[in-house]
Amino acid sequence: MRSVSIVGVGLTKFGEIWDKSLRELVAEAGLKAVADSGIGGKEIEAVYGGTMASGRLIGQEHIGALIADQLGLNPLPAHRMEAACASGSVALRNAMMAIESGEHDVVAVGGVEKMTEVDTAEVGFALGGAGDQETELFHGATFPALYALMARRHMEEFGTTEEQMAQVAVKNHKNGMNNPYAQFHKEFTLEQVMNSGYVASPLKLLDCSPITDGAAVVIIAETEKAKKMVEQPIEIIGSGQASGSIALTGRENLTEIKATTIAAQKAFEQAKIGVKDVNVAEVHDCFTIAEIMAIEDLGFFKKGEGGKAVEQGKTAMDGEIPINTSGGLKAKGHPVGATGVAQAVEIVQQLQGKAEKRQVKEAEIGLTHNVGGSGATVVVNLYKKA
Amino acid sequence: MRSVSIVGVGLTKFGEIWDKSLRELVAEAGLKAVADSGIGGKEIEAVYGGTMASGRLIGQEHIGALIADQLGLNPLPAHRMEAACASGSVALRNAMMAIESGEHDVVAVGGVEKMTEVDTAEVGFALGGAGDQETELFHGATFPALYALMARRHMEEFGTTEEQMAQVAVKNHKNGMNNPYAQFHKEFTLEQVMNSGYVASPLKLLDCSPITDGAAVVIIAETEKAKKMVEQPIEIIGSGQASGSIALTGRENLTEIKATTIAAQKAFEQAKIGVKDVNVAEVHDCFTIAEIMAIEDLGFFKKGEGGKAVEQGKTAMDGEIPINTSGGLKAKGHPVGATGVAQAVEIVQQLQGKAEKRQVKEAEIGLTHNVGGSGATVVVNLYKKA
Repeated sequence: MRSVSIVGVGLTKFGEIWDKSLRELVAEAGLKAVADSGIGGKEIEAVYGGTMASGRLIGQEHIGALIADQLGLNPLPAHRMEAACASGSVALRNAMMAIESGEHDVVAVGGVEKMTEVDTAEVGFALGGAGDQETELFHGATFPALYALMARRHMEEFGTTEEQMAQVAVKNHKNGMNNPYAQFHKEFTLEQVMNSGYVASPLKLLDCSPITDGAAVVIIAETEKAKKMVEQPIEIIGSGQASGSIALTGRENLTEIKATTIAAQKAFEQAKIGVKDVNVAEVHDCFTIAEIMAIEDLGFFKKGEGGKAVEQGKTAMDGEIPINTSGGLKAKGHPVGATGVAQAVEIVQQLQGKAEKRQVKEAEIGLTHNVGGSGATVVVNLYKKA
Repeated sequence: MRSVSIVGVGLTKFGEIWDKSLRELVAEAGLKAVADSGIGGKEIEAVYGGTMASGRLIGQEHIGALIADQLGLNPLPAHRMEAACASGSVALRNAMMAIESGEHDVVAVGGVEKMTEVDTAEVGFALGGAGDQETELFHGATFPALYALMARRHMEEFGTTEEQMAQVAVKNHKNGMNNPYAQFHKEFTLEQVMNSGYVASPLKLLDCSPITDGAAVVIIAETEKAKKMVEQPIEIIGSGQASGSIALTGRENLTEIKATTIAAQKAFEQAKIGVKDVNVAEVHDCFTIAEIMAIEDLGFFKKGEGGKAVEQGKTAMDGEIPINTSGGLKAKGHPVGATGVAQAVEIVQQLQGKAEKRQVKEAEIGLTHNVGGSGATVVVNLYKKA
């Protein structure tokens, strides 16, 4: 199978971007990615876009074609993937397969979401479509409630504490201070997180990722071609995707997202490396409990020991394995369709040594972990210098 | 590049299916496709789904994972593609690339839409998201209006008549009489079509495809493997996809869908055959004018001569090139995300000699043509016996 590398990355500022529409956001990130790659747009052969809920949020579907149109890339084949909050990573994986198949050599992959044009309740219902509409959302269970159930069970089984979850928020907001693209540049103390109001007990406001507008684009190419295009392409050396029950009720247990375990296993097998080889990781912290579960399911820590690991600083910038150096979904923001692609952007910059104040020393291997819904889709990718 | 063939097909009845939800529809079609292929479900390695507007229509996104879950296929990688009314074909193309890349050998591809759970106005707005929300839908231009503009221009430039458009409806409803899965089993005379009320002049009610619930599934496999699996796999010998301006205002002219021309050219080049080699075709007749433009843009007839060709019976069951033997979107129905996959089902049955009363004699080469929106995405596929 042909190998795929990233040759250019671009991000918009994440946040409440009142003065830009979805199409403007994706164009901005796209032009930055093309500039970063040093290629002319004419070398691009196809477009993949990840967006979750644009139909509900801005009345616009057909996002692949919209992106191609907006970037002046007609008549290239344009695709939109949707896998809830994992839409961006699923778009990236399918773009990779388009290159692996020999159909294309250079592909643009965008993730984008414009979430602030409707009221917060409508955003909650739109995002609720990532779970099971019939057995969850219809009965009032929006996402904070679903993750609260997982958090409660994790506390019950492993003694994980609200303070440990809060430490995830403290760490990620600290990391976000060094990310110019992050939605929040604001540090919080443990006390401040603990004193924020409950959204769905035990999850408090500051345990939750925000509502965000934003776009991320990467340009990918067949690796041999990539090496001729840019000084330091970043190769995707392993990629795994798995599905799981869309409703929590279908799970064997609530403390593990099994699709993470399976996707990670595939990615590590493909890359022929182990979890100890990873130097930096972006994981899906839509809620603080999600980061704790992720670092366990990915194998960085044993099941049940994630909370303690965070408390002991093992996942901090100077810890054993720096997690969410970008600030994560928590502080960088979570424009759902963009998130998977934005995670790849952070890892590329880390491996290229361009992460500035967030730079992890001697970062050779990076990992991204992107979850759709409460775990019905998970993508895990592994990266190193090509 | 590895070759891909279809080894099993399944359809639900198309229509207003009040007693089945989206997940039940796709499960029904999926089980039929698996049964048709003769394989056990365990040979399937990934799931691709095409759905356009489930977020708006049933409050459910994350359709790939939902389908995998419903079909008992967790933890297989599950993907949803959205490209408006071309969602099904774009899903099929990406599933093909997943096989061509070597990532998978056997993949299930579903298309599904559940359109009757909301009122017709909401369906209109949801479908309007296939065009340009900002410059078209926001100002009141839903799809009948957009295609009416194309029809008016076609009449002006080429003398195409309302009667010629009506003849498309007469033909497709006649064909639909022989399709047990069609939404309508009702023939119309030219006079009846002409006397139906205007929806957006010159398009009348009976020029428009209906609102439909339904699902279609095909099982595809690498061709050498496919030959060992079933007696007569149908190979996809050419596939082209192109994008075009999402808004009509961005087009060079309104009488051609340029993405059709480009996608067809690619498909024919890949298959190393010409349009004269095609024996049967399913084209995207969301409105009658769309079929006339399609048979011109695909090269069956010269630009401007499509209307006359229909009038002269050249596209009838016993004509030069039978078009929409299934009844087309017009009579079979148009569950938007399912349509592209359902077109493939019809061509497979034609080439396998299983089309019963709709059977085209000596059908060796088939074509499908699936349009997203007013032409911002087009997929053209070519098929023959493997």
